Amino acid sequence: MKKLRIGMIGYGFMGRTHSNAFRSVNNFFDVPYEPVLQTICARNEERAGKFASNWGFASTETDWRKVVASPDIDLIDIASPNDTHAEIAIAAAEAGKMVMCEKPLGRNGAESEAIVDAVEKAGVPNMVWYNYRRVPAVTLAKQLIDEGRLGRIFHYRAKFLQDWTISTDLPQGGEGLWRLDVKVAGSGVTGDLLAHCIDTAMWLNGGIEEVSAVTETFIKSRKHNLTGAVEPVGIDDASLFLARFKNGSLATFEATRYARGHKALYTLEINGEDASIMWDLHDLHRLQYFDHKDEGRLRGWKNVHITDREHPYMANWWVPGLQIGYEHTFIHQVADFLTAVGGGKAAPPTFRDGLATDDVTDAVLQAAATRSWTKVKERA
Amino acid sequence: MKKLRIGMIGYGFMGRTHSNAFRSVNNFFDVPYEPVLQTICARNEERAGKFASNWGFASTETDWRKVVASPDIDLIDIASPNDTHAEIAIAAAEAGKMVMCEKPLGRNGAESEAIVDAVEKAGVPNMVWYNYRRVPAVTLAKQLIDEGRLGRIFHYRAKFLQDWTISTDLPQGGEGLWRLDVKVAGSGVTGDLLAHCIDTAMWLNGGIEEVSAVTETFIKSRKHNLTGAVEPVGIDDASLFLARFKNGSLATFEATRYARGHKALYTLEINGEDASIMWDLHDLHRLQYFDHKDEGRLRGWKNVHITDREHPYMANWWVPGLQIGYEHTFIHQVADFLTAVGGGKAAPPTFRDGLATDDVTDAVLQAAATRSWTKVKERA
Amino acid sequence: MKKLRIGMIGYGFMGRTHSNAFRSVNNFFDVPYEPVLQTICARNEERAGKFASNWGFASTETDWRKVVASPDIDLIDIASPNDTHAEIAIAAAEAGKMVMCEKPLGRNGAESEAIVDAVEKAGVPNMVWYNYRRVPAVTLAKQLIDEGRLGRIFHYRAKFLQDWTISTDLPQGGEGLWRLDVKVAGSGVTGDLLAHCIDTAMWLNGGIEEVSAVTETFIKSRKHNLTGAVEPVGIDDASLFLARFKNGSLATFEATRYARGHKALYTLEINGEDASIMWDLHDLHRLQYFDHKDEGRLRGWKNVHITDREHPYMANWWVPGLQIGYEHTFIHQVADFLTAVGGGKAAPPTFRDGLATDDVTDAVLQAAATRSWTKVKERA
Amino acid sequence: MKKLRIGMIGYGFMGRTHSNAFRSVNNFFDVPYEPVLQTICARNEERAGKFASNWGFASTETDWRKVVASPDIDLIDIASPNDTHAEIAIAAAEAGKMVMCEKPLGRNGAESEAIVDAVEKAGVPNMVWYNYRRVPAVTLAKQLIDEGRLGRIFHYRAKFLQDWTISTDLPQGGEGLWRLDVKVAGSGVTGDLLAHCIDTAMWLNGGIEEVSAVTETFIKSRKHNLTGAVEPVGIDDASLFLARFKNGSLATFEATRYARGHKALYTLEINGEDASIMWDLHDLHRLQYFDHKDEGRLRGWKNVHITDREHPYMANWWVPGLQIGYEHTFIHQVADFLTAVGGGKAAPPTFRDGLATDDVTDAVLQAAATRSWTKVKERA
Repeated sequence: MKKLRIGMIGYGFMGRTHSNAFRSVNNFFDVPYEPVLQTICARNEERAGKFASNWGFASTETDWRKVVASPDIDLIDIASPNDTHAEIAIAAAEAGKMVMCEKPLGRNGAESEAIVDAVEKAGVPNMVWYNYRRVPAVTLAKQLIDEGRLGRIFHYRAKFLQDWTISTDLPQGGEGLWRLDVKVAGSGVTGDLLAHCIDTAMWLNGGIEEVSAVTETFIKSRKHNLTGAVEPVGIDDASLFLARFKNGSLATFEATRYARGHKALYTLEINGEDASIMWDLHDLHRLQYFDHKDEGRLRGWKNVHITDREHPYMANWWVPGLQIGYEHTFIHQVADFLTAVGGGKAAPPTFRDGLATDDVTDAVLQAAATRSWTKVKERA
Repeated sequence: MKKLRIGMIGYGFMGRTHSNAFRSVNNFFDVPYEPVLQTICARNEERAGKFASNWGFASTETDWRKVVASPDIDLIDIASPNDTHAEIAIAAAEAGKMVMCEKPLGRNGAESEAIVDAVEKAGVPNMVWYNYRRVPAVTLAKQLIDEGRLGRIFHYRAKFLQDWTISTDLPQGGEGLWRLDVKVAGSGVTGDLLAHCIDTAMWLNGGIEEVSAVTETFIKSRKHNLTGAVEPVGIDDASLFLARFKNGSLATFEATRYARGHKALYTLEINGEDASIMWDLHDLHRLQYFDHKDEGRLRGWKNVHITDREHPYMANWWVPGLQIGYEHTFIHQVADFLTAVGGGKAAPPTFRDGLATDDVTDAVLQAAATRSWTKVKERA
Repeated sequence: MKKLRIGMIGYGFMGRTHSNAFRSVNNFFDVPYEPVLQTICARNEERAGKFASNWGFASTETDWRKVVASPDIDLIDIASPNDTHAEIAIAAAEAGKMVMCEKPLGRNGAESEAIVDAVEKAGVPNMVWYNYRRVPAVTLAKQLIDEGRLGRIFHYRAKFLQDWTISTDLPQGGEGLWRLDVKVAGSGVTGDLLAHCIDTAMWLNGGIEEVSAVTETFIKSRKHNLTGAVEPVGIDDASLFLARFKNGSLATFEATRYARGHKALYTLEINGEDASIMWDLHDLHRLQYFDHKDEGRLRGWKNVHITDREHPYMANWWVPGLQIGYEHTFIHQVADFLTAVGGGKAAPPTFRDGLATDDVTDAVLQAAATRSWTKVKERA
Repeated sequence: MKKLRIGMIGYGFMGRTHSNAFRSVNNFFDVPYEPVLQTICARNEERAGKFASNWGFASTETDWRKVVASPDIDLIDIASPNDTHAEIAIAAAEAGKMVMCEKPLGRNGAESEAIVDAVEKAGVPNMVWYNYRRVPAVTLAKQLIDEGRLGRIFHYRAKFLQDWTISTDLPQGGEGLWRLDVKVAGSGVTGDLLAHCIDTAMWLNGGIEEVSAVTETFIKSRKHNLTGAVEPVGIDDASLFLARFKNGSLATFEATRYARGHKALYTLEINGEDASIMWDLHDLHRLQYFDHKDEGRLRGWKNVHITDREHPYMANWWVPGLQIGYEHTFIHQVADFLTAVGGGKAAPPTFRDGLATDDVTDAVLQAAATRSWTKVKERA
């Protein structure tokens, strides 16, 4: 099998999920490439070494430019903080490498547009790690919608609820906490959590036309974890919006890190004339389905345990009744990417898809700032 | 509308549910009789008076024999402790009254047999208050089974779990606690809780052939609540049995008052070749249904919210989505009884059905005592 | 016990729930009055007669002004369509009667203000039938919030989802379908369903400061059920809004009759710094509670089965584990009203509380019409 | 790190779960050994080669005796059908290898006893793959019980429900279907599914004293998948038993492959005086916990999402809210085994623990055959 040598930039939480995916995909999926963990790149050499040893990377590097330039690398995988995405991705494209990038693509639409221009000009395969599309239950939802099972769509609603930043003692900035630093992250929950909801929503229900939004920063200042200085918090802790999709359906979206009792509760629901679907990340192996065409007295929400061979991706795992977990979604994403690349096809979500999501988060932030209904940017 | 004058013996928890049912049935159901709360009978005159005033009984009485003999009474409703059922029911039948009796019918099969002989000889309408048959979800289950939806039945399982007697401080005997006195109650959870499970099970799945059982009294002695004397506990606190039904299906049954965390968790499940059904009393307005004939990738347990007009009894209540509660099952039972009587038909569960349940509880207690598989008594 | 003679205007769905509540309250609650079903008033004499016979009203009337004027009536209960509320309520107040009114109070804030002025000038007891406050689980939520269990509140979210008007064949207007006629109803789901969500929300979480909203009419024209003419639909089929409460918390609200699979799914959730609460009407006898102060590894959402004696209202019903249903909320409301009146106190939700809700629905409709964030009217 | 060279016998479903566990453990757990996939052994050389290539085994072998004898092997892992366990395990022990064996240990107690004698005589580390002990939620249950949180135990109940053999068309025997061949498997669901329930039950609740049981073979004859001959079915399709534990608690156990709607529904519940626990395999990342010491009006079943750092094993995975799946239990088991071996300790469930389970399944089968309460064999 043809080897595909990975140069990975970043070694945090996402570095782990990506490494595991590249390392495991061939055990479970029949794909045209064998990913090779070639180089891990991090500014801190000791940490890079430890990470390389743990995951089996062949080499380490502290300067990402060298990885991008290396002839030993086929694909650059960007798992570093958001403020580095654009520069690395553009350089990688210009070097003719395939590029995968953790979400969000850029910190805003302008950054993302530049990235898209670069990969499209270079003609290199590219993909954003919006992994939740590859939850088998979510993929099944997509199939059902594409088959027309739901009929005309009236409503969409999505939430991503967490509670891990409620404490006033939590510092901001620096290692591991860059998601709380607006300069690095670009925004708070809007780019971090809402972006997931928006990517899935547009995949399932098409484009979003306009939004009205409100954001809030509940805790206004925090100590910096490196300097100790108390500084204003720049990110949004919560971001809520109303939306109208191009297909005429209405939606509520909400993301927050202040919903006590929820750790990573990403939920989505879509209501059609004929059928409805619900899913949530806390029980990701289940899909709720209501079919109005069922016999009247037996209509109800069906709780489908997505572990059968006929469910998306599941024939590659265990036997019916035995669930998979979170990291499998990354393995599925790598499998689909490799298959697409092998077949000369684009592998969605492409960077252009990632840009479309950033256009919506831009509109959300603008709508919140201007207190006005805001159109999502139209692109050709 | 023709009036049906009720003489009720007993004023406890069941006296309340029955009174409410008689008092409300005409508001919601179109039936050929109007029950009239004529006489409430209790040994304690003051309490009888208070109960009569609360529920609108026209008169009180302290001697049940006078109620049975009264020409002003059409129906004797027995809501008094188990040790009084046989004597009252037989006298009522001999006086030509209709008889309704709280479950279990007798303290054992022998008592129940005498009662059945009396009502059948007298030819009077009769019914045991196994109210859970009239939960709309359970009635729907019966309809589905009767339509052959489940195919060949392989398994049945039922539990009735409570936790209210766990404390060693709880006294036994006397007012309100006669369920803990074996002389009055006949048995512990076997006659109190298992009897419900057995009645429903035989209604849904036919006769039980044989059983193996174990019972236990976890707290061996308790203070009597009137005398203060510490006395051995005679009832069973828990009663479990394996069963083989006449149709070849296998079953587990369990009742206990020592299942911490459960207040009145009566659950049942039936597994057929083609479909399965689950129900539980803690959410009595829901039925779980699994249909193997559903499209493969969308098979799952359907959670049916039993509040639609096409669900049994529900057209008589509110609008879809609005649930009913516990006491409604008694109203349904009265409605069905009155309709049956008006049409000259038997109103199941008849006393003979109640006897069949007592035959099973007898077999369970015998199996536990003899540590042997025990056949349920066959009657012509 | 002192009798309280009821004159009821209207005999539809709400006429039934109110009649049942007045008729049953003394069986279960110890209150200082005995409601008497004195007069039922409806324009159609035959229907009034049938309703009177079913529920035991002593007399019927076709002109509500006569009921209001009658010396035999102590309390006017308004269960007729929304466009009649103001006129009747004001007349009743001027006649010195107590007044209860089905929600919403008026078709808009202006109507409601006139009603409030009338009852406050007359000094008569008054109450709006926002019955969901009296769901025991919701009342318990209120108690927990009042005890400060939740700490600072960050989020509130509420939905009321139905699907009964999805069909294009459904007619509008006339008997039983006046909720689809904007002239009678005042609005669509905004006044019908959202009003419930808003009343509970403000009771639990205080006043709402401003809103941004969107409404939609999915099916634009319908046949009139009496005239047969196809006419534009004037009501909103769906109404969604973002809100900021006075306490700084953010909220999403949504009501629709186009959410396939939901019959009457009213859900609410409130997230505080220390604890969170969820409830839904489809399992109204349960409360979900998350307490962050619980031991870390055992934190989770607790599913509380609201059937214990220590739960609000439940000591008056059956025994632990046995659930109540929808109509009980009306009985609780009557019980609380009678107790308040007997004690010379106001019985919330008063008409003034109902006006506050109408001020919010007005703001929602205005925000949707103007596509702008809209302040809720401030009253002294 | 010290390498531990694995010789694996068998390449079926369990060969995959074991291989994945050995291959992944060092990515997630800090253990004193690095497992090396040295040799895969299977009678069919082509399949062995394909399996080796997929999982990265260094070599293949068709004769297990050569693997056992090889100086390149430190640990023999038995993942072949049940009828091969004893011979291989004994030979491996005699060769001084560590031995891990898929469950059940032997086809019956006699076989298992011989295996235990061999490993204990040889003094080699040994472990049976009862993987469900290592579900984090189940491990947490064990911790809570060991801390005395539940108080005196009254009840235990466990079920393992499947439906995959209901069709009469399903053949028996041969490749992939040896679980239906009694000569190979030893029994049907008793050794396959009940054994899991029993292992967990005795780990959580101590020894079982006596049992009463019933088994059934619903489909009496099946076509052999290799010969085509229709032959009697020798295995039990369903196996149910009542039990009394040594601590006085009562139990029901049930396993079946005829419970329509359930794929691998292993459930367990334990009720103590102070608290109760429920768990099920279809949502393995959740634990249900009821604590009677909670404040009365807020008592309820707590749904704990077992994804926090303080939950067993979970600090080694992702972040709170992100669930793991089935195969992780095998990785945990390898991690615990390697840690125990590194520390010179036994790694339960040892082969002696596996023997204890086989003693119970023997008693169950004997109780069913003799229709008598049967004592579980006592060993010193």
